[in-house]
Amino acid sequence: MPMQSNWSLVKKHLIEFLKDEVRNTGIKKVIVGLSGGLDSAVVSVLLQEIFKDDFLAVMMPTQYSSENSLTDAQELIQKFGIRAEKVEIGKYLDVFNKANQNANSLRKGNFSARMRMATLYDISARENALVIGTSNKSELLLGYGTIFGDLASAINPIGDIYKSDLFSFAQFLGVPYSIVSKPPSADLFDGQSDEVEIGYTYSEIDTVFKLFVEDRLSKSEILKLVQDKNLVEMLISRIYKNQFKRKMPIIAKITDRTFGHDFLYARDVQI
Amino acid sequence: MPMQSNWSLVKKHLIEFLKDEVRNTGIKKVIVGLSGGLDSAVVSVLLQEIFKDDFLAVMMPTQYSSENSLTDAQELIQKFGIRAEKVEIGKYLDVFNKANQNANSLRKGNFSARMRMATLYDISARENALVIGTSNKSELLLGYGTIFGDLASAINPIGDIYKSDLFSFAQFLGVPYSIVSKPPSADLFDGQSDEVEIGYTYSEIDTVFKLFVEDRLSKSEILKLVQDKNLVEMLISRIYKNQFKRKMPIIAKITDRTFGHDFLYARDVQI
Repeated sequence: MPMQSNWSLVKKHLIEFLKDEVRNTGIKKVIVGLSGGLDSAVVSVLLQEIFKDDFLAVMMPTQYSSENSLTDAQELIQKFGIRAEKVEIGKYLDVFNKANQNANSLRKGNFSARMRMATLYDISARENALVIGTSNKSELLLGYGTIFGDLASAINPIGDIYKSDLFSFAQFLGVPYSIVSKPPSADLFDGQSDEVEIGYTYSEIDTVFKLFVEDRLSKSEILKLVQDKNLVEMLISRIYKNQFKRKMPIIAKITDRTFGHDFLYARDVQI
Repeated sequence: MPMQSNWSLVKKHLIEFLKDEVRNTGIKKVIVGLSGGLDSAVVSVLLQEIFKDDFLAVMMPTQYSSENSLTDAQELIQKFGIRAEKVEIGKYLDVFNKANQNANSLRKGNFSARMRMATLYDISARENALVIGTSNKSELLLGYGTIFGDLASAINPIGDIYKSDLFSFAQFLGVPYSIVSKPPSADLFDGQSDEVEIGYTYSEIDTVFKLFVEDRLSKSEILKLVQDKNLVEMLISRIYKNQFKRKMPIIAKITDRTFGHDFLYARDVQI
């Protein structure tokens, strides 16, 4: 991936992409859920440069988020002069927790992610703004995200950039050190760590993903280069197992032209 | 569409489709949001025939739903012996309404649809079940549904059947008269009617959709057959304007293999 060694070219490309794709929709404003983490920081810096006051960052902390998340988000907002709003979603989680006292942390986490989506999409309707996505390529391949939750957006500028590469892109863009240096976290509870949960670092994970996805090596070829069989098998199986999170619902074909089969208008066709 | 005149063939086809697609996921159970309307009734009857006690229908009425919705759903449940559960989502709407006192009915409706999705997906995690969709083809073409709300599902058996054809399919399947005979409604408030909101009946709407989508006539050719220029232009423009609801987020291409561009694994590939 030669482009990734040239962040100034990637930045230019993503800025043109965002300008074009937003213009195609006819909508003038954009919004993003700003968590205080790396991914939404990168997307926010790009959007601020293009859209200025037509960009709104929405912070949706809960009683379970780390305290640092909000202060890190605020540091970014101040540094780049980003227009921002804070919305409390804790009361929805209180209703959920009361009704579902046995729910495990996966269910709670997915419900929180969907409450953030519902809140962000509601603000997008209020503001007549497009929701811009912040899922990176590693997360999308792992399926480490909530379908119809944080994976939901209209346009995603960083869905083709691996997490381990995003750190240097963020530094290039001037994202504050506090955000670039902290361990990646879904932040569903204080102290949560992606890498601890998955059991490997993003650097280990992305090495295998790049061999499989970009270089198209087979599993046995990868195992000659990467000794950890458990890691390689886990990652390849996650790609397939989580494919459903990257697809529209499958529709049964009945008529001559069916969504997802042969009804395939381009999104931006004008008539 | 010759198949639609032969409902017994369509039923057989959909039953095979549902069996195959559910089996491909490795998941044994299915759930559906049962509203008391026509679409979810048709899907429930199909699922009950295949999955029996591995099928759960979830009713999620609110303080704003019509009273008939719940009694109609219960009539269907009794007639077919469907396993069902009722979940209250009204408290979430109370929190939303208090925080958003100026929200219009579109915002309230979309938020309700997304709360139902979040609830249904949470139950699907609790039950280890797949969410089956209930959006029909007319609704999908009109964009008359909430993205990441009622449009969210894993598998949709009726997304290629026009609403005006679903009435006779429902009758064929033995859906109770109370459900087949009532006016279509999103049921976001008592007395709401799709056809009043859109300004045309589904029969008028589907006539134009079939000429455009199935028979591939141009706008000017359709206008020779259908005199109502307003109707024809409104419908064709809605197909394009709502295309975003039928697509995954657009991802900027950076690497060699990008989701939605050239990373296109089949969902059910086994390795």
